[in-house]
Amino acid sequence: MERHPTHMTSTTVTVSAPATVANLVCGFDILGLALESPADILSLSLLDEPVIRIRNLDDFGLPADPEKNICGAVLASINRQLPSHVGFDLVQDKRIKPGSGIGSSAASAAATAVAANILLGNRFTQSELISFAMDGEVLASGARHADNVAPCILGGITLVRTVDPLDVLSIPFPPLYLTVIHPHIEVKTSEARSLLSPEVSLKLAVKQWANVAGLVTGLHQSDYGLIARSLEDFIVEPQRSKLIPNFYPLKKVCLDAGALGGGISGAGPSVFMFSETRERASAVEDAMKQVYARTGIPFLTYVSTIGKGVVQV
Amino acid sequence: MERHPTHMTSTTVTVSAPATVANLVCGFDILGLALESPADILSLSLLDEPVIRIRNLDDFGLPADPEKNICGAVLASINRQLPSHVGFDLVQDKRIKPGSGIGSSAASAAATAVAANILLGNRFTQSELISFAMDGEVLASGARHADNVAPCILGGITLVRTVDPLDVLSIPFPPLYLTVIHPHIEVKTSEARSLLSPEVSLKLAVKQWANVAGLVTGLHQSDYGLIARSLEDFIVEPQRSKLIPNFYPLKKVCLDAGALGGGISGAGPSVFMFSETRERASAVEDAMKQVYARTGIPFLTYVSTIGKGVVQV
Repeated sequence: MERHPTHMTSTTVTVSAPATVANLVCGFDILGLALESPADILSLSLLDEPVIRIRNLDDFGLPADPEKNICGAVLASINRQLPSHVGFDLVQDKRIKPGSGIGSSAASAAATAVAANILLGNRFTQSELISFAMDGEVLASGARHADNVAPCILGGITLVRTVDPLDVLSIPFPPLYLTVIHPHIEVKTSEARSLLSPEVSLKLAVKQWANVAGLVTGLHQSDYGLIARSLEDFIVEPQRSKLIPNFYPLKKVCLDAGALGGGISGAGPSVFMFSETRERASAVEDAMKQVYARTGIPFLTYVSTIGKGVVQV
Repeated sequence: MERHPTHMTSTTVTVSAPATVANLVCGFDILGLALESPADILSLSLLDEPVIRIRNLDDFGLPADPEKNICGAVLASINRQLPSHVGFDLVQDKRIKPGSGIGSSAASAAATAVAANILLGNRFTQSELISFAMDGEVLASGARHADNVAPCILGGITLVRTVDPLDVLSIPFPPLYLTVIHPHIEVKTSEARSLLSPEVSLKLAVKQWANVAGLVTGLHQSDYGLIARSLEDFIVEPQRSKLIPNFYPLKKVCLDAGALGGGISGAGPSVFMFSETRERASAVEDAMKQVYARTGIPFLTYVSTIGKGVVQV
């Protein structure tokens, strides 16, 4: 392999990459958003040799072998687009627990793509960065999807209209706060996928896309009532909710506490709720804690607004 | 029956009610718009006796019996909401051919509801007017749907998120021109409905609601490219296009002539195309005429922008 071109900087770039919520109730496979927190911290430097070194500062037991590591897969994908392979030293401090359903793998992938792009003089477009990060998702789940990496890289709320070719749009939104509960149970994305019937009734599909149109309209028009009315999933939630203990009682207390609505984050097990204010989101958090304290299942909760995605820190 | 209250005006109200396009390609059963033309003309006056008299000036052979007439059904529905039944004299000059797929029955129903409301001192909300007009649609097709009456009454582009309860939203839009071709063949709505498989694949349903989200976003953001990319129907058009002779060659020449996209209007047989400018829409009209001139099937074409719905004239 050739050595990397000499015009590159040899400084270290550190980025923060937030958790993300995919699907947004009715928007299965197309809508997602970036939280402000929790967020991973990742530092990347160029090396003189074309090798990739990975160190994990956290205790999640993630592989340091670049061929088995999500960040390694993203760097390999980036290297395939460079005139000559570049060496990277990567140090990751993950704070988003893997398997939480709030985009832990996407945060690693997106952080790596954005940090590498900064080191390489911002030569890639945001679409290209999303594409590199999707190669990390392939290693994580076997599926080349942008549900989490798109909002993680772009921030805000995103619509992934198509993956191939990649067509991602940013959707404007009014002030919104999220409450997330992460029950510490394992839900494999593959299992959550296999639960879904490959066929749906046309009648329910129409109701679902009516809500998708309502949610997108509510976000554009800052219409909280419309957002709340549109946050109903006729197709995926009825099939997947069984994976999450106490899902319906949890949802009920959140709505009673004033949440606009919410549902399963990604493929679960995390559950999220939207609220109009931070105070309301905190009341929803209290309600969530009360329900889950009774289950004996360990859990974490978060309150966050919608964030800017990966940022240099 | 009691006589109508004496505070009502006895003048005649004349309204114009435009043709409408329902479904808007990917937005089956939820999205619709009002054209500027063609439009029906309808005049309504109060009578001293609680009877309903209907006269048709056109030669479509529509029934004058109020119990069999769409306008009569709407007036009966309005009367049920009044403290005492009111008599109406209605004169209709239809210019939208029944069975065209551009909301002929909806124009009659919407015109009647709006004209009666003006005569009755604007006592009803727009939602109530849509609801009255839907009772006319029940007589016309057996289904209580707002796909055409909502845009006919509200104007512009509308989203019918739910019918029961009625939740209708206006969607903003950039300048858009429509070209419509009405081949003079009969497509019964019931037949078009029965063609549709009651089940769809989840995969195609997701692609469809991705396009619905893309189209609604493109309209809000005046993004013509996004509108064009989103105008693809994976579910209904593949099943219904066989009802319309030369559908795919017609669509191809329209896209070649610069249309943004389009598809079947309502349940057909009319086909519509969106364009960015009136000039482009006229070029699309020429292309449509060339394709249909070769079929030997009589047809009409229209070029129109998006209109204001029913207006008093």
